[in-house]
Amino acid sequence: MLQGFGLPARVARGIGKNLLIAPEGNTTRLLLACPDRPGLIATASGFLADAGLNIVDVDQHSTAAGRFFMRMVFDSPPPGDRAMLESRFAREIAGPAEMEFSFSESTRRKRVAVMVSREDHCLSDLLWRWRNDHLGGEIVVVVSNHEDLRGEVEAVGLPFEHVPISAETREQAEHRALDLIGNVDLLVLARYMQILSPAFLGALEAVGAPAINIHHSFLPAFVGADPYARAHERGVKLIGATAHYVTAELDAGPIIDQDVVRVGHEAEVPDLVRIGRDVERLVLARAVTAHLEDRVLLDGERTVVF
Amino acid sequence: MLQGFGLPARVARGIGKNLLIAPEGNTTRLLLACPDRPGLIATASGFLADAGLNIVDVDQHSTAAGRFFMRMVFDSPPPGDRAMLESRFAREIAGPAEMEFSFSESTRRKRVAVMVSREDHCLSDLLWRWRNDHLGGEIVVVVSNHEDLRGEVEAVGLPFEHVPISAETREQAEHRALDLIGNVDLLVLARYMQILSPAFLGALEAVGAPAINIHHSFLPAFVGADPYARAHERGVKLIGATAHYVTAELDAGPIIDQDVVRVGHEAEVPDLVRIGRDVERLVLARAVTAHLEDRVLLDGERTVVF
Amino acid sequence: MLQGFGLPARVARGIGKNLLIAPEGNTTRLLLACPDRPGLIATASGFLADAGLNIVDVDQHSTAAGRFFMRMVFDSPPPGDRAMLESRFAREIAGPAEMEFSFSESTRRKRVAVMVSREDHCLSDLLWRWRNDHLGGEIVVVVSNHEDLRGEVEAVGLPFEHVPISAETREQAEHRALDLIGNVDLLVLARYMQILSPAFLGALEAVGAPAINIHHSFLPAFVGADPYARAHERGVKLIGATAHYVTAELDAGPIIDQDVVRVGHEAEVPDLVRIGRDVERLVLARAVTAHLEDRVLLDGERTVVF
Amino acid sequence: MLQGFGLPARVARGIGKNLLIAPEGNTTRLLLACPDRPGLIATASGFLADAGLNIVDVDQHSTAAGRFFMRMVFDSPPPGDRAMLESRFAREIAGPAEMEFSFSESTRRKRVAVMVSREDHCLSDLLWRWRNDHLGGEIVVVVSNHEDLRGEVEAVGLPFEHVPISAETREQAEHRALDLIGNVDLLVLARYMQILSPAFLGALEAVGAPAINIHHSFLPAFVGADPYARAHERGVKLIGATAHYVTAELDAGPIIDQDVVRVGHEAEVPDLVRIGRDVERLVLARAVTAHLEDRVLLDGERTVVF
Repeated sequence: MLQGFGLPARVARGIGKNLLIAPEGNTTRLLLACPDRPGLIATASGFLADAGLNIVDVDQHSTAAGRFFMRMVFDSPPPGDRAMLESRFAREIAGPAEMEFSFSESTRRKRVAVMVSREDHCLSDLLWRWRNDHLGGEIVVVVSNHEDLRGEVEAVGLPFEHVPISAETREQAEHRALDLIGNVDLLVLARYMQILSPAFLGALEAVGAPAINIHHSFLPAFVGADPYARAHERGVKLIGATAHYVTAELDAGPIIDQDVVRVGHEAEVPDLVRIGRDVERLVLARAVTAHLEDRVLLDGERTVVF
Repeated sequence: MLQGFGLPARVARGIGKNLLIAPEGNTTRLLLACPDRPGLIATASGFLADAGLNIVDVDQHSTAAGRFFMRMVFDSPPPGDRAMLESRFAREIAGPAEMEFSFSESTRRKRVAVMVSREDHCLSDLLWRWRNDHLGGEIVVVVSNHEDLRGEVEAVGLPFEHVPISAETREQAEHRALDLIGNVDLLVLARYMQILSPAFLGALEAVGAPAINIHHSFLPAFVGADPYARAHERGVKLIGATAHYVTAELDAGPIIDQDVVRVGHEAEVPDLVRIGRDVERLVLARAVTAHLEDRVLLDGERTVVF
Repeated sequence: MLQGFGLPARVARGIGKNLLIAPEGNTTRLLLACPDRPGLIATASGFLADAGLNIVDVDQHSTAAGRFFMRMVFDSPPPGDRAMLESRFAREIAGPAEMEFSFSESTRRKRVAVMVSREDHCLSDLLWRWRNDHLGGEIVVVVSNHEDLRGEVEAVGLPFEHVPISAETREQAEHRALDLIGNVDLLVLARYMQILSPAFLGALEAVGAPAINIHHSFLPAFVGADPYARAHERGVKLIGATAHYVTAELDAGPIIDQDVVRVGHEAEVPDLVRIGRDVERLVLARAVTAHLEDRVLLDGERTVVF
Repeated sequence: MLQGFGLPARVARGIGKNLLIAPEGNTTRLLLACPDRPGLIATASGFLADAGLNIVDVDQHSTAAGRFFMRMVFDSPPPGDRAMLESRFAREIAGPAEMEFSFSESTRRKRVAVMVSREDHCLSDLLWRWRNDHLGGEIVVVVSNHEDLRGEVEAVGLPFEHVPISAETREQAEHRALDLIGNVDLLVLARYMQILSPAFLGALEAVGAPAINIHHSFLPAFVGADPYARAHERGVKLIGATAHYVTAELDAGPIIDQDVVRVGHEAEVPDLVRIGRDVERLVLARAVTAHLEDRVLLDGERTVVF
């Protein structure tokens, strides 16, 4: 891939930060978004400084459309002080500035449920990163509409729940899945080959758990059935993957990450499928880690990924 | 970009070969395509060996659909013997095997015409590679519908022809352009922002000169007006470029090369446009070089690029 | 990484070929190397054609130093005819041309032993590719000088052998390891943190099993102790990995594959170590697959990787 | 190149920022470095907010070794107020915090001198970016110890100064070069094949103009004569380039950027040289742009590149 200008430094910072899990110690991550206006950085950082809290890291972005986004990481206050800090921030800073905001502590690892069907390439990569403690969160359950991957999941000590689903049983099956997923912070669709109903997505939203999905991408894109066959007919030289938040509109939610792999004239359709796996597993893992580290904010249909 | 398996070797070979311009000396490149069947490699290489010609390089590919493609590079015969060699090959080998084939000598550099409008990013890169003699062919004329780039072209000693074009004057303008382009082997559209008429393309085909075009690509693709604005709205993380042969169907000809560059939430629309230039210039130059070195064969809507 | 010229096609071919495992069906791979001279391709392909064998794929390379390398893949002859084919090839083709050569059948999967210490990033990736049947060979045993990874190995149904080693016990330990490894075709050192003695390497060579090792690489390189700390002091922007055949000279054997990952000022030493894992696992897996598919030939201290 | 985690967002930000030249309008860039301690971000941003200045962009980094680095971009004050702002900042903020700092206005484009010998690949790329106004500064003169590139430089309307140099004339030649370079902000060595004397570097330092150099890099590195030949003997699969600040110790100054390109067994020595050019030109241009946009701070032997 061609390197863009200014890229190296950011790559550096990106890699450095995302992997500085341990060093961060007990820190709190504050995400905020509001209409842009002068003094926001000073106001927010001043608030934390006045509270005697040391800011470890700041990322900020203002869009041409006039919206302001910021991520601040600071040393966590004593547990007893946190509630008051948040309420004071809400009253003194967020209210006047019409801010949306959220606080989250690095030591409170987010809980992740994974849904998968038969292919294990994404699941396997997520499990490896989780076992090695650099996924950035805790996988608590794997739900599948097939039995195939039970062994692989149980081998690493995680519960594997089989929830078969069909056109007739979709509603009950989704209810069952929701019960099993329970109170998680994130649902990852690691090649789960069923469409989730609006009711299911609504229930997730109600508990504040977004879902991240991975799907193949091509230049040009091929919508509809058998995309690999059509990409082959067209002779594309790149196939890729897109990780995005799940919305009611299939495969059209806000994009978190994308990447591609080069293919050529000797790759027949089954090769394209096989090749696509290596890029899908990496892109999904990167998107999940970014979300679990509170690096992703929504800007309408777009994401700001710090 | 994620590296695929087996990729390093090919990258190696690719880079090595494409740059082995000098070492190749006076060699002949034979491109052939025919229905696949046993013994084709032995037959073709045997024919050259019997003629006392040393094969320097062979690339071959058979598709699952049963078509055979091969590129052979061999030390050129004495000028006097070439015509007979080709006619014998046509009679003894190509005929029986229903082969399409072409011979071309590395010492007879292909002639290239470039059409451009106002943006010089692709033109400038092509001129640099040509001046340094690793484009793989000879640029003989630059035709533009604007005056803007005359200075840059004439500075390197190439003729610059200004052919203004409008809806009313399209036909005459295209005739004039064809006269100026004259007898070239390849037309490169280096950001030429006019649509070429079927008549123009037909006239090029008649003289055996294909045209290569470059255009932006996105994941997902955006067809129609103002694609960068729409890519920005959608928050794509990759923008790219596709180099392809020009056919009557706009931007849908066989793809020769593609690449992408990573972008993010801070890139506003003008940034996307600017960023796209660095990838467009590299992808177009790669595609042009591959064509000029007789590495590209057509397989229906696809290309085989050796 | 900057794309080189001619790269896309090769990437394409490379990916396509390495993944065309299934389609290859029951084919035989012939690797050969000899002094370069005219007619070698015709002679070798003619021999196979005369034997009624269909050539599926050919890769060939001649060095400026005058050495010729070729890989031919052809439909396997009936089991009964193979011995005679090989002896005829040795007598009629290889002998006169002073060729080194080897035949191997795609259906006879190579046997692989893996040695590992405590880190599982390379092992885990190899096991996943093996389970999904696109490693290109069969892992038959994992030997480690630590107990740490027993669970992960046994979970996929492979034998895990613990062979502790110390300065005093090195000789006996290496004997034991050799017995356990037994009659394999390849030994993969997947982060095995012990130096193998010349005696051990000699014994491997005696059974015709090369060893592939993976180690970190930097620009510039840092030899000796604590390379990550020194790379950090120096502020390198890229760290990488090199997969190579093991020779008596530590980390200096013929290079099979290399890759890098970008790092920056925010990456502290533990981050560099963590980041290095993702590149090491991919580079080692690519090198192992290339070897198992008979794509690698030796040219003195260099490799030719088709 | 393998993508690291968290990389996409940073790449995005990097590309976005570096190209947001126009949108930045008349802004001032404040770079500062000091011992790390709580409240630095609040203090500095509060100072600007109190002065009624709108902060457009903030980047900050603290090292494990306890040093704090920050880059702030804010809307410039009226010309008349600038001097007082800087003196107040020095007295009230920088002094107490033992800060090194610098203010620079985006509208005051930095002046760049380029030194080059015979190869134009780096020069040509810098000139193209400068002509298209996205280099980030103004090239004011090109000095060379050869006449070869006069035409290319004068064609774009820049002065070309020929200063031949030899062992005997080095001192006078360097004096002459210094006079011609005059009062610039940056010297770029775009493949200038002469070693600069400590005296020359000292004189540059005296006028506050650092020098950026580009040189090839390999895995492993090859120091001394004929590195490409030795890289070829060793069969490296990657060759690269490193852009760094020039110090008395040859090629060992703080690294600003690095990149690599993949090569393989078919690349002979002249190919490696040719291939290296495409990576050298891109890496040098990226490093120069980063410096001209005040993105690079020194941390001992390392760089912090925002």
